[in-house]
Amino acid sequence: MKTYLDCIPCFYRQALDAARIAGADEIIQKKIIDELSQLIPNFSLETAPPEMGRAIYSLVGKISGVKDPFKEIKGNSNKFALKLYPELKKEISNSEDRLLAAVKLSIIGNIIDYGAKNSLNVAEEIDSLFQGNFTINNESSSTTFKYNQFKESLNKVNNIIYLADNAGEVVFDRLLIEELVEDLGKEVIYVVKGKPIINDALIEDALFCGINKVAKITSSGSDAPGTLLKYCSPEFIRLYQNAELIISKGQGNYEALSEEDKSIFFLFRAKCPVIAEDVGCDVGDMVLVGR
Amino acid sequence: MKTYLDCIPCFYRQALDAARIAGADEIIQKKIIDELSQLIPNFSLETAPPEMGRAIYSLVGKISGVKDPFKEIKGNSNKFALKLYPELKKEISNSEDRLLAAVKLSIIGNIIDYGAKNSLNVAEEIDSLFQGNFTINNESSSTTFKYNQFKESLNKVNNIIYLADNAGEVVFDRLLIEELVEDLGKEVIYVVKGKPIINDALIEDALFCGINKVAKITSSGSDAPGTLLKYCSPEFIRLYQNAELIISKGQGNYEALSEEDKSIFFLFRAKCPVIAEDVGCDVGDMVLVGR
Repeated sequence: MKTYLDCIPCFYRQALDAARIAGADEIIQKKIIDELSQLIPNFSLETAPPEMGRAIYSLVGKISGVKDPFKEIKGNSNKFALKLYPELKKEISNSEDRLLAAVKLSIIGNIIDYGAKNSLNVAEEIDSLFQGNFTINNESSSTTFKYNQFKESLNKVNNIIYLADNAGEVVFDRLLIEELVEDLGKEVIYVVKGKPIINDALIEDALFCGINKVAKITSSGSDAPGTLLKYCSPEFIRLYQNAELIISKGQGNYEALSEEDKSIFFLFRAKCPVIAEDVGCDVGDMVLVGR
Repeated sequence: MKTYLDCIPCFYRQALDAARIAGADEIIQKKIIDELSQLIPNFSLETAPPEMGRAIYSLVGKISGVKDPFKEIKGNSNKFALKLYPELKKEISNSEDRLLAAVKLSIIGNIIDYGAKNSLNVAEEIDSLFQGNFTINNESSSTTFKYNQFKESLNKVNNIIYLADNAGEVVFDRLLIEELVEDLGKEVIYVVKGKPIINDALIEDALFCGINKVAKITSSGSDAPGTLLKYCSPEFIRLYQNAELIISKGQGNYEALSEEDKSIFFLFRAKCPVIAEDVGCDVGDMVLVGR
């Protein structure tokens, strides 16, 4: 996906948020904003948004001196989501269509803001999302929740590359991967980012959330908030090129890979008007698109 | 009020919106964004936000070639609000406290988005705002709706300077001015901007909405979206310095004048988190502050 002009105000928003999470004072925050301003005129709208995301978080790291500002948030998200695991597993077991339930939960895991809420609220939010938000989208005719096509594609393959998004969300990914592996007999390789970028999952997050019990874990080598192939390791590129089917989580991976000529299914919530327009859905929709 | 770092993403948002209203294509929009980016590093946070607002709309005018992009919107807002006038006048006549009703309507006039809605919806919105949104704020103890202090200050003066905000809203200002002049016997001078800036009222808007029937109309000479004294005419500065009491409408005038050592009452809706924090209220609150 290309960068839209409407992404630019959001880049500034993200820079400020990250600077504050890094503990930067107002002078450092302004310095980050000023350096971002110097990048904008040379930034081509033809590049995908995670390219600028990468530049922003590199600026924040360089100027604030904090290389992994989201480390604590990621740790808390993992712990919090792991506590939910038994309940979520039960939800899947009680479902008529286990795979559909796991797919839904995997997308729901993409939207929970673990930081700001207590566990009761989050459990309620998950429940409400699980019951409600898919009702209009999980029709087989929906163009932005292609569950039937996803199932058909799964039937044709044995090996799946699963691109992770955020820490915490990893637990929800594990639930889907368990269905793919234990119920459907697939082999899954779980791919995390290569270096700290926002709250994206790293190898330590995948291990903490127990992905290793059910799938191989590897890194893409990328330090962009989305799997931009130009920043990935040669090992990952080989894996990617040979992949039969890719499950891609989160908006960043959609932005990075939506124009790739591969069999990729993108699972995420459309969090902003720009991506909703690109996908052809409403803001807030749970999205399962691809082929 | 100083500029907060959180205003900066919003500056980009405003630049894009104005560029699009001016009919600029994507290349022109990007040029405006790029030139704005070059201003940011030299922009001091100690200046008030309307300073940057002025720079942004000057960029849009210069680069797009459209000097008054909101002209049509302003005209439509005036016509639309004028149609509401008889109904609003009746609302005041039916009120126990005519002045309070007129103050409320004047603030409500600051928040209506005339462009996007049909007249039935707007009438309903006004009614709902009039009935509901002030209930917690019009207590005499509220620090952000100082109606009692406002009334006391009015009692002590004969002459009032009334600083306008948007076109359309002018009709709502007229209702309050009619109370001040016809019911309370005050003299009012209504001050509009000197040159086109966003949808701010100019002399032609004040005339169209009939302010001349009840008050003198003059211009501040300013072309900033807020009465920044450094851009005002010497005539207005004299008027301002000799003013007994100033009624200031809208967020932009608050941003420009909140730190002035004058008897000013600010009437507006807090439309963003930055101004809500500065005032000490919630986003969406109807505000009447000053002394």
